[in-house]
Order: sequence, then structure tokens, then C-alpha cells
Amino acid sequence: MTQEHKKDFDFSKGLQCPMPKLDHDTIQMAHGSGGRLMGELIEQVFVSNFKNEVLDRMEDQARLSFEPGADLVYTTDSFVVDPIFFPGGNIGDLAVHGTVNDVCMSGAKPLFLSAAFILEEGFPIHDLMRVVQAMKLAAESAGVRIVTGDTKVVNKGTCDKVFINTSGIGRLEPDLKLSVSNVQPGDVIILSGTVADHGMAIMTQRENLQFQNEILSDSAALNGLVESMLDVTREIHAMRDPTRGGVATTLNEFATASGVHIQLDDDAIPMRPDVKACCEILGVDPLFVANEGKLIAAVPEAVADRVLEAMRRHPKGKDSAIIGRVRGDRSGLVTSRTILGTERVIDIPMGEILPRIC
Amino acid sequence: MTQEHKKDFDFSKGLQCPMPKLDHDTIQMAHGSGGRLMGELIEQVFVSNFKNEVLDRMEDQARLSFEPGADLVYTTDSFVVDPIFFPGGNIGDLAVHGTVNDVCMSGAKPLFLSAAFILEEGFPIHDLMRVVQAMKLAAESAGVRIVTGDTKVVNKGTCDKVFINTSGIGRLEPDLKLSVSNVQPGDVIILSGTVADHGMAIMTQRENLQFQNEILSDSAALNGLVESMLDVTREIHAMRDPTRGGVATTLNEFATASGVHIQLDDDAIPMRPDVKACCEILGVDPLFVANEGKLIAAVPEAVADRVLEAMRRHPKGKDSAIIGRVRGDRSGLVTSRTILGTERVIDIPMGEILPRIC
Repeated sequence: MTQEHKKDFDFSKGLQCPMPKLDHDTIQMAHGSGGRLMGELIEQVFVSNFKNEVLDRMEDQARLSFEPGADLVYTTDSFVVDPIFFPGGNIGDLAVHGTVNDVCMSGAKPLFLSAAFILEEGFPIHDLMRVVQAMKLAAESAGVRIVTGDTKVVNKGTCDKVFINTSGIGRLEPDLKLSVSNVQPGDVIILSGTVADHGMAIMTQRENLQFQNEILSDSAALNGLVESMLDVTREIHAMRDPTRGGVATTLNEFATASGVHIQLDDDAIPMRPDVKACCEILGVDPLFVANEGKLIAAVPEAVADRVLEAMRRHPKGKDSAIIGRVRGDRSGLVTSRTILGTERVIDIPMGEILPRIC
Repeated sequence: MTQEHKKDFDFSKGLQCPMPKLDHDTIQMAHGSGGRLMGELIEQVFVSNFKNEVLDRMEDQARLSFEPGADLVYTTDSFVVDPIFFPGGNIGDLAVHGTVNDVCMSGAKPLFLSAAFILEEGFPIHDLMRVVQAMKLAAESAGVRIVTGDTKVVNKGTCDKVFINTSGIGRLEPDLKLSVSNVQPGDVIILSGTVADHGMAIMTQRENLQFQNEILSDSAALNGLVESMLDVTREIHAMRDPTRGGVATTLNEFATASGVHIQLDDDAIPMRPDVKACCEILGVDPLFVANEGKLIAAVPEAVADRVLEAMRRHPKGKDSAIIGRVRGDRSGLVTSRTILGTERVIDIPMGEILPRIC
């Protein structure tokens, strides 16, 4: 297992675009008023970055042409991550990646995003630009367009810096039937890479933990990886990104919705040594920790090796591994074989593991 | 001008559905964790209310069938109104109405909504139920379905009770070309009813002002009204709902985007006497105050009377009036003839009029 430390652009760092020429350095209540100041903010910060011919029309709604013969996939996600800048990304690219991934886990091709900002009075425009720039680059890189948006400002102390909602629309070919309730006995469970990177990147930042190599969030758009898998076979049964609640929660959702037993192989789960150490220090089970650039797929055994090969050839899937198998013997259960050969039940966590992780 | 004081259900008041059987009376951090408590909250509060076959599938994304031969309309809006319960509505039905209206102002038929909640730790579940119930009834009444959602919880003090984002998708027949930049000299400007009701309903609540009749928000879905207008003619040039920034801002958007001069007739603008009094007490110009159940349309003079008649026959448009005319003499300008016969320029407000009005 190699370690991925390079990113095209480190969204946690500085600004690579010019600062807008606004009258204020921080967000004013007036930036949310519907008036002239709000117009300037939208034009100079959002539209100038997210520039495309749909958004440029400046209507209150985006008009999209959609080719016949396909279904729509539609999703929404709010992002409240704290801190907003973290190793390997910020709330902006996370908000793009998260929604792109929710769309493409259905097998759909993500096309359009909305972006809605709730800004705290006093939030620095410079920080907002860093966030917006990360969104712009993440959207370009994922091949999606941000076509409609909204801006609200609330008084200081009534939100924490910035919350972002993205919703997303994708195009789904009707022959694809991926579903959380379509996992079948005999399927192989594939995970696309190392676990717990995002959660531990956030936690090291919050707890000010130092490691030899900085732990970076895995925040990434997975639509390219999904395409490479669907090029191999249309017979992938289920796919989901293990974000909040981690791998354990996603597998339990598979097991419950499909009425199957998923048997994990603990040893096979890819994990970076420093992330593992970090989980041990903080006393959290890495299987419950959020990922933001990984997917779990349930694939018929007959095509599993070919799917795995295709995934490993893709930059976002090079550490992919088969981590378990689906059985029909017990319904709704996820278990794991430990190194000692015993079996433990992997349940959904009752409550909070790591708050505001995304 | 009659006064509309009846609503089918007063969303500002109590609860008309059973309370969910949850372990807690208030929102816990764990309700945003991805774990079992979050699953219970989603199932018992959101899914049980918004119930429909798309949402019930419990996938991370909604799969929608979309008939060929039409365009999509797509919009997003976050709602941060304070207080969350106000005379005539609450943040929930407001969030449905606002997005339904943004979709239908293009001439599109609103079909699907997303709903994403940011909840403050400690927020009472009973209040959440009131909000969700208002959304459910508003969606049913508007004929739209809430098909995908998201829930985040943040620590006490890092948001104010509840923020809601709704995005919306509608179906647009390709022959319709309504646009803010399509207003033409000779057009007649029609307003669908009294101005400033929503803003003043919020302000009376905040400032604890008492009037003989309570001022109610006009929060309402306008898709039915729009349909009745499009039944008369497909030649409506532009349509927009004057929310934040009010009628003045919307008309300025028309004038600027279309390069025309809009001449208002102050006398013709419908306003409730108590709302007018309230604006005078607070020292705000009613033309700058938010509405949440009104629309402004630019219509060719030849069809204006028939459109106006159709609007007045509709319950949401019974106070509709012609409030101005479009001229080609000066570009980007909105002016008003006063009672004294003089002319004043109606500009966009620079900044904040009434914060957190929607």
C-alpha cells in the first residue's frame, strides 16, 4: 500500500486567484440583504469563479437541457465541517466532492450542482475566496458545473463561519440498478482505498496532533473511478461512499437493506500506519471514522477481479482491496474475522463519533 | 382590496401530528452522527412525514424519471429566518414556498424538492416536528414531492435553532422563454397582491408590535397562480417573486437586465392599511420589504387585461393590480410617479433592510 500525499492543489493553503474589489474585508449583514452589496458579492466572488453559461444568465433558477432516455439522480448535502480549513482540503472542495460522490454512487454521471452559502457576519472575504476557489477547482476537476446558488448572511454568533449546502443532479442510464437493497449472497465487498483518512485529518487539526507526515483528508470526487468500474461491468450491485459513520455504517446499511450477512476480513482493510496510530491515540475504531474519497462496492464474484484491477489502475482507487464477502446465512448482520480467528459483530454506532466531520 | 386572513392551517401554532417516539426531547449531537440515533430521527421525523415512494427507498440520492421533450429548471435556497415561527407560517413552509416559487417563476412546473437541515444541539424535537409538518403540508398543497434530504447537527451556539436548505427541480416546456432580460418597452407590470406582508409579519413579531388584526406572512406557493396565467398566454415576458429587497429590487433587476425604464404608479400598489402603518412606524419603505407569496410579471399590453382577470380569479392573486409600465426611453431605471405628480427614482437598497427575513 502506497501513501498518497500529493494533491494537485492544496486547498487548505493560500489563494491563487485575485481578491475581489469589495468595499469590505469581511462579510457584512448587508451582503445578505438582496441589495447592491449582495449583488457585488455574488458577482465578484461566486459568479466570477463558477463562471458558466447557465449561471451567467443570472436568473433565480438554472435552466438545463437534459437528453431523453435517461433518469435523473438528485441529492443534497449540507457541510458544517470544523475547522473549515484542514490538511488536504477545505469545506469548499469537500462540499463539491461530497455531492458529486452521492450522485455517482448510483452509477449516474454527475452534471450539475447548486451551491448555497450561509455566512457569518464578520467572516473574512479572503477565507471565503479560498473556499470558493476550492469549489471551482473541485467542480472543474470532477467535470460538473455549479449552475445555481444562494447566499444568506446571519449575525455574528448565530452560525460558525460558513455552512455550505450543495445539491446535485446526475444522468443515470436506465439499465443501471445499483441499490443499497441489491446486495446479494456471493457478492464480494471491495473498498477503494485506505480508511479513516478524512476523519483523522480533521481530528489531528482539532487536537493539534503532530505526525511525521501530515495526515491529509482523502476528500476527492469519485465519478471517474465509478466510470472505470462501470466500463468493466454493468452488474455492480451496490455502491456507497462511507462518510459519516464510516465503513461500519455503510456495510450495516447494505446488510440491513438487502437482508444479508457481510463477513469482513479485518486484515484486508487498507489503512495508513499513521492513521492507525492516530485512531489508537484517540481511542476510535477506524471502521467508524468518516472517509470523503472512498467507495464500497458489492460486486458479483465472477467479475470481482476485473473490477478490482480496473479500480487499482485508477489514481483514486490504487489501494483498492477486497475486504469481505456477502453470505445469506444471517440477515442484517456485519461481522469481522479477527487476526485471532474469532468473530466480532460490527454494529452501527449508537451516536456521535466525531461531530462536524463533514 | 380585501384582506386575506385565513390560512388552511396556521403553521405558526401547534402540532397536528403525533410526536415521534425518540429517546430525547431535544436534538443531541448524536442525531447528526450517521449512527442509530440519526437513523431514528430521519425515519420518525423526516421520512414519516415526507413519505413518498422515491424517498422511501432510503438511497443517498433520489432517482427520478423525467419525461423527454422538456427542459429542467433547478434552484436552491437556504432559509435562516428569525424567528422561526411567525404569524402565518414558519421556516418550514417558507422553505417549501420559496423554492417552489423560484422554480415556477421560470414558467416551469415544480416537481421535486430536496430538504437539508442544520440543527442546533438542544433544539426541541417538538419544534422540529412543527417545522417538518409545515413542510409536508406545504409540499402537498403545492403538488411537489420532497425526494431527498440531509441532516447535520452542530454544537449549541454554532447555529441558531434550525437552518433549512431546499433545492428544487421543475419541468419547463421548451416554448416558454420567460427571462429577467426579456422585459420589453410597452409591457405592463402586474403585481399579484399586497406588498410587504411577510417582512412586516416578521418585524411585528421581533419588535412585539400589536395591531388590531395580526399581520400575517403572505408565504404561499405560487405555481397554481402561474399556471392560470400561462393558460391565458405563453407570451409572458418575465416573472419573479419579490422576496429579499422587495418589489424595488425585483423591478431594478428587470430594468437592468432588460435595459428598459420601468415607470411605477405608487397609488396602484396594493397594500394593507395595517402593513402600511407598520412600515411607517418602523421607518421602512414597503417597496424594499420582502414578500413570500407574491409575483411580479411583465406582460405585453395586448394580453394584460386577460392575464390580470385570470390572476384575480385565483385565490393567490385576487388583489392583483397593474402597477406600472415599461418604457424604452431610459435604460436600467425604475421611477415612480408620486401623488403630487413628481417623479422619484427607485434604486436598489445599498445594504441591509431587514436581516434574516427568509
